[in-house]
Amino acid sequence: MRHLTSIRELTRESAIALLDNAQELAQVGDREVKKLPALRGKTVVNLFFENSTRTRISFEIAAKRLSADVINVSAESSSVSKGESLKDTAQTLEALGADAIVLRHPMSGAPKILAAQGWTKASIVNAGDGSHEHPTQALLDALTLRQVAASSTDLAGLRVLIVGDILHSRVARSNILLLNLLGANVEICGPEALVPSGIEELGASISHSFDQALERNPDAVMMLRIQKERMDGSYFESPAAYGRDWSLNSERLSKLRLNTKILHPGPMNRGLEISAEAADDSRSLVLRQVANGVAVRMAVLHNCLSSGGES
Amino acid sequence: MRHLTSIRELTRESAIALLDNAQELAQVGDREVKKLPALRGKTVVNLFFENSTRTRISFEIAAKRLSADVINVSAESSSVSKGESLKDTAQTLEALGADAIVLRHPMSGAPKILAAQGWTKASIVNAGDGSHEHPTQALLDALTLRQVAASSTDLAGLRVLIVGDILHSRVARSNILLLNLLGANVEICGPEALVPSGIEELGASISHSFDQALERNPDAVMMLRIQKERMDGSYFESPAAYGRDWSLNSERLSKLRLNTKILHPGPMNRGLEISAEAADDSRSLVLRQVANGVAVRMAVLHNCLSSGGES
Amino acid sequence: MRHLTSIRELTRESAIALLDNAQELAQVGDREVKKLPALRGKTVVNLFFENSTRTRISFEIAAKRLSADVINVSAESSSVSKGESLKDTAQTLEALGADAIVLRHPMSGAPKILAAQGWTKASIVNAGDGSHEHPTQALLDALTLRQVAASSTDLAGLRVLIVGDILHSRVARSNILLLNLLGANVEICGPEALVPSGIEELGASISHSFDQALERNPDAVMMLRIQKERMDGSYFESPAAYGRDWSLNSERLSKLRLNTKILHPGPMNRGLEISAEAADDSRSLVLRQVANGVAVRMAVLHNCLSSGGES
Repeated sequence: MRHLTSIRELTRESAIALLDNAQELAQVGDREVKKLPALRGKTVVNLFFENSTRTRISFEIAAKRLSADVINVSAESSSVSKGESLKDTAQTLEALGADAIVLRHPMSGAPKILAAQGWTKASIVNAGDGSHEHPTQALLDALTLRQVAASSTDLAGLRVLIVGDILHSRVARSNILLLNLLGANVEICGPEALVPSGIEELGASISHSFDQALERNPDAVMMLRIQKERMDGSYFESPAAYGRDWSLNSERLSKLRLNTKILHPGPMNRGLEISAEAADDSRSLVLRQVANGVAVRMAVLHNCLSSGGES
Repeated sequence: MRHLTSIRELTRESAIALLDNAQELAQVGDREVKKLPALRGKTVVNLFFENSTRTRISFEIAAKRLSADVINVSAESSSVSKGESLKDTAQTLEALGADAIVLRHPMSGAPKILAAQGWTKASIVNAGDGSHEHPTQALLDALTLRQVAASSTDLAGLRVLIVGDILHSRVARSNILLLNLLGANVEICGPEALVPSGIEELGASISHSFDQALERNPDAVMMLRIQKERMDGSYFESPAAYGRDWSLNSERLSKLRLNTKILHPGPMNRGLEISAEAADDSRSLVLRQVANGVAVRMAVLHNCLSSGGES
Repeated sequence: MRHLTSIRELTRESAIALLDNAQELAQVGDREVKKLPALRGKTVVNLFFENSTRTRISFEIAAKRLSADVINVSAESSSVSKGESLKDTAQTLEALGADAIVLRHPMSGAPKILAAQGWTKASIVNAGDGSHEHPTQALLDALTLRQVAASSTDLAGLRVLIVGDILHSRVARSNILLLNLLGANVEICGPEALVPSGIEELGASISHSFDQALERNPDAVMMLRIQKERMDGSYFESPAAYGRDWSLNSERLSKLRLNTKILHPGPMNRGLEISAEAADDSRSLVLRQVANGVAVRMAVLHNCLSSGGES
């Protein structure tokens, strides 16, 4: 592949190949010298129109482990604030020598536009666009689930419950697509106001009671981050009211089966959508997700930049 | 040379040698591995007291292609905001191990002061100072023009029209000096309020009608970026009024000869001083300018840091 | 050692070994290629919750000279501003692959908590915490003093006068501890309101007249940076009033012995706690302190990251 702007660009085969590649690359983190020369001389630009320290660092470390040069650009300090168009920015970055542009953008679809318009020969990797997609997050979640699943190939039959604010979540959207591609059964569960109509068409069943969903004993519970501004009077009386219905609190944790895994894309609001106890529970895969993020991004960058321009 | 603070420090011969060197280095961008070991172990500090993402990235990529370590410092976050003097900053950076300081500063002459006072052994490269100079921009413009000119050595006889806000433009000032040095004929053209008196002494003729200047069929038209704050009531009734007289719009584009080149230092205000059509026209060299910027900065850094301290 | 959060973690022997190591590493700065491969493949994260360009650059250059990859994170742009806990930040950085976290934090004790809680396997290096400690500053000061002291091992018998705002100074606190460990005699001198009670128990005599302290002919005078906000009506009538009593001005400079050294951690407020004349005097070691800072931080990072996890 030359770009990765959406999980929709992946087939089951190409997704599995990426995960296999990431699984191998994860072992670089255990080596004495955590460097591979694969992308030496390549330039990766992290172009972030929204703040995301974690995602930026994850891509930065991934690129550096592959010996690429990394340039960080944040929108606040970029000429975009002088009114330059995304097209000019992309063309300029390519002319400057960017081989890949890792793009975080508040506008849904911005990475796809960049990749599709042919404005730049640089590879475009979506690092989160609006409420649309966050494909490397879905890949790292899938890699994490595959490491604990029965099959070492896909997620066939795995039952995954995604909980919280589905409406604004690019993480949920990418995950539903990828989990389906890999054969998992996805249930999404959230307050009616935060579950968009039609989302079931991506391949998920919908429910509106966290407690009832937990009684169906999912193999994995993926908690989404709740934005505090979603929890005000427009949807809920208070954070406490939200937590009562939607938090993976200690009471719900105690009802989880011993082998039900807990995921969260981070950063966690401990005490809000997830209790500290759940976050730190032995069933929690949160930190493994973070570690797998670097491996997945190494695989994606390597794949995009080694494809010799085929699209 | 040890520093580059002004085009006035260059002779015709040293300018041509720099361009020759940049022309060679431009080919590094086409190699499989875009790295040269020339500046390995050297530290280049980008010290930017004004935001300029493009120029910062261009220097950063140039330095990294030569295997230097790059440290980015923006004034907002520097101890300068704690009231430290430029002298202390420079001496501190040298003591920290800076071999070169790439300085963008709002005060005209700041880089020259740093270089001339002997406060630091580090090489000082001017990345734009006030409305004074921007020598690497002029060098990349000259390299771009030389690539399309009759001569492969200089710009003898080339007729270049520089259009817009000359008064506040360090780009114009450096370009007039360098284009003259290389034998080009320079005409500057702008509204009377934005052409400083005496500028013709740098070596340029002056005119105040863009349309008439175009009738003289220049070989290249260099559009300057207009600052939106210059376009308010103090000079013009409105952006539209400015555009009517001073934009390279589609009507003017249609009157350009087939081999008249279009340059712009970027970032462009599409629809203001240049139309999207002109920016994307086959005669536009805008993206080639950007690419040449990296090569020119490689040549300048290499030249400054290899000169063994001779000044 | 695995972490360095306080000078209290050092013995006389381990401190001297660090200084010896730094003295050797200082010579890397004189080599043609200022790089050692020691930390190749290691990732050092500069996690700064307060701005400090100098300290950040010093650690960044130190890590890069040892061939480590460096990731800069400033609190403003980090997910901490989204309310993430220090624990989650540290665990996340470790999962991302951080081998060392260089932490600057406004809360006294934050680095120690990180190191002590076992939340992360990464080495924690204190780059300044609240008004508590700044151990690498003390080490670079000690290295600087040792280079001019009689002994090439420790600072036995050296008489050091620390002047200014002791109350808010982590630099003073770390220095008192380390200077004592190395056998120096420390006198601290400041206005009563800015000398905390009990500080003499760290190993220092206390006085409140700069002029009288100078008459005792110290071997070194270490001026502290005064925060301008400390100089308002709460303590002093005016900056001039502060300067009259507490500045190393030209009059006091003229009374210093020829071999009394002047130190300042920087950035200096020239004209406030130190005159320009004193800052630039031949007895001033200010720039040597800066250069030694890189060497000391190389030694600390190397020591922490080579210890194989022993604590």
